[in-house]
Amino acid sequence: MRAALTGAAVQELFLTERAATRHPDLVASAGSRLCMITERAAAKLSETASPQGIVAVCATLGRSAQEALQGAVRLVAVLAGVSDPGNAGTVIRVADAAGASAVLFAGETVDPHNGKCVRASTGSLFHLALGLESDPLRAVAACREAGLQVLAADGTTGRDLFDVADSGALAAPTAWLFGSEAHGLAPALLATCDGAVAIPLHGRAQSLNLATAAAVCLYASARAHRQPAPRPIT
Amino acid sequence: MRAALTGAAVQELFLTERAATRHPDLVASAGSRLCMITERAAAKLSETASPQGIVAVCATLGRSAQEALQGAVRLVAVLAGVSDPGNAGTVIRVADAAGASAVLFAGETVDPHNGKCVRASTGSLFHLALGLESDPLRAVAACREAGLQVLAADGTTGRDLFDVADSGALAAPTAWLFGSEAHGLAPALLATCDGAVAIPLHGRAQSLNLATAAAVCLYASARAHRQPAPRPIT
Repeated sequence: MRAALTGAAVQELFLTERAATRHPDLVASAGSRLCMITERAAAKLSETASPQGIVAVCATLGRSAQEALQGAVRLVAVLAGVSDPGNAGTVIRVADAAGASAVLFAGETVDPHNGKCVRASTGSLFHLALGLESDPLRAVAACREAGLQVLAADGTTGRDLFDVADSGALAAPTAWLFGSEAHGLAPALLATCDGAVAIPLHGRAQSLNLATAAAVCLYASARAHRQPAPRPIT
Repeated sequence: MRAALTGAAVQELFLTERAATRHPDLVASAGSRLCMITERAAAKLSETASPQGIVAVCATLGRSAQEALQGAVRLVAVLAGVSDPGNAGTVIRVADAAGASAVLFAGETVDPHNGKCVRASTGSLFHLALGLESDPLRAVAACREAGLQVLAADGTTGRDLFDVADSGALAAPTAWLFGSEAHGLAPALLATCDGAVAIPLHGRAQSLNLATAAAVCLYASARAHRQPAPRPIT
């Protein structure tokens, strides 16, 4: 909520008396956007079982992929065909934490304004540039035009993530492409990427949850980005 | 389900006609444990909105922490005070994938037999040794007795994860201790650990979701474990 208020995304803020007493900073930040409501109204307006008494009307966030990738981008997450809103929101949160500057929602991906997605992102939705692109192929093309290598997270065909990391390839500006948990990435989309990468499965798990896979990939990039490129000993 | 059947955890398997037709391998594996049921019964027995027509009665899985840590353990996850079953199950899944041999549920942590936890683990619950210990301090002690260093994941007091990784400290057999998303780890518990480690937050996210944090920590260990220890050039 604070992230949304600071980012000027909030157009109207509805608070119960109880919530206003608990969060005087929200009252102060909201200014003329504030409207007091009853507990009953808060319960009706919230989608959750235990409403906090705080409801905001926000501007929609999505821009085009090109707009979201403007400036000096070094790390981006692209979701292509991700349907679970909780997973999508958690990816936004971990992308923010790993230092990504944008998340692109491509193809048949859940609406980032979905309540579960917004809640799972815990404010990170308002920290990053959010790009919407109905065609995943165009999302990949936009990333490459922005100077990013596009690496597809693909457990079936990918090269071992830590071999890729050891090779130094993650030091380059990178967009990570993640597909749906159920169906992965379409071959035509995979073919347009600069490479496919698999997280090694050391135990007997057959796959990873999307958000945990994204965490491992994005933080492998974050680690590579902070290291100076290895130099030969002279 | 296959993991549970193979691991002999399944005592009774209930299938609808439809599910039996779709999964003849389950019918073959179940043998005398099989019982056919109607779609209506499957709907009543399942906790999900879209039941798959497969319900199993399984033996409870938990053992003591000491039993779960027997053998050559190199990587373990310990959950202390984790209340969200989906998060707990996802940690089991990623711990399995990263090569952990055990997950300990310590203190006021959700029951690993909770339906949401079982489903989120996608079978990994049956791949790993599962230890239950009501006292988190005893869980930490059991890990140390098993020859593991215990590293607490703590965003507030911890040392940067990748500095720790660069130092070579993750090459040692390690138990990762994770606290609740809301309250973290109690100071008395933190004090008994060999060190506290924080995942660096590069963007504006204030924290990570438990399962994604566990993914980053456990895979940092997995990466360190596969590398030979650095040797001085002679």
